[in-house]
Amino acid sequence: MAGDDEQAIRKVVDTWMTASQAGDIDAVLGLMTDDVVFMVPGHEPFGKEAFAAASAGMKGITLKGRNDIREIKVLGDWAYLRNHIDMEMTLPDGTTTRRAGYTLTILTKGSDGRWRLARDANLLTEQK
Amino acid sequence: MAGDDEQAIRKVVDTWMTASQAGDIDAVLGLMTDDVVFMVPGHEPFGKEAFAAASAGMKGITLKGRNDIREIKVLGDWAYLRNHIDMEMTLPDGTTTRRAGYTLTILTKGSDGRWRLARDANLLTEQK
Repeated sequence: MAGDDEQAIRKVVDTWMTASQAGDIDAVLGLMTDDVVFMVPGHEPFGKEAFAAASAGMKGITLKGRNDIREIKVLGDWAYLRNHIDMEMTLPDGTTTRRAGYTLTILTKGSDGRWRLARDANLLTEQK
Repeated sequence: MAGDDEQAIRKVVDTWMTASQAGDIDAVLGLMTDDVVFMVPGHEPFGKEAFAAASAGMKGITLKGRNDIREIKVLGDWAYLRNHIDMEMTLPDGTTTRRAGYTLTILTKGSDGRWRLARDANLLTEQK
């Protein structure tokens, strides 16, 4: 049922946010397909391996954020999601930066019945 | 057939690029759903009416661009598209700015069999 899928997708987002803030990289990596493509302004698209490397480089950085899902549309074993994310990043020296904005994400349901991120466009910008 | 749909989607992109550069706003508006949502960094998402208003405010501005489709995935009556766009904008006073980058777009096929843009995340940034 589409409603169950919608709930499952909300759970993926919740887990993503919680795991990111806990620094649980493996949990985050488990929420994306192996051929995931991440898109951010000003850079070439990148995949799972680059995501893992970037995450590993963020040890000692504290993330604190919240999100507000604006739309979920389930299309069979695919879905798209519009989310608003507001994220604060604190470096070991105490410097804090805040990024906020929208994402457009495409998810797909694997043969194991689990939803994962497949494509993600991240439009967050630094908040002054 | 998915191949036919892919060709039809390529045609939508071609028409969009040509019509944008020709200043044919009506043709561009005909390529999006009535409830389309456009997302760009640093702004709230906006719809068809705001798109039309912004386009009307661009009279006298010359657009010259090219695009390179990186991926099309057809999911029944829905599809997603990753595109790379490189666009030069020249103001009436001759000032030129260049924006380039990627887009992630969701399209849907209407009951008339025509594909239209439904959601669009535009990650283009100014090129110095």
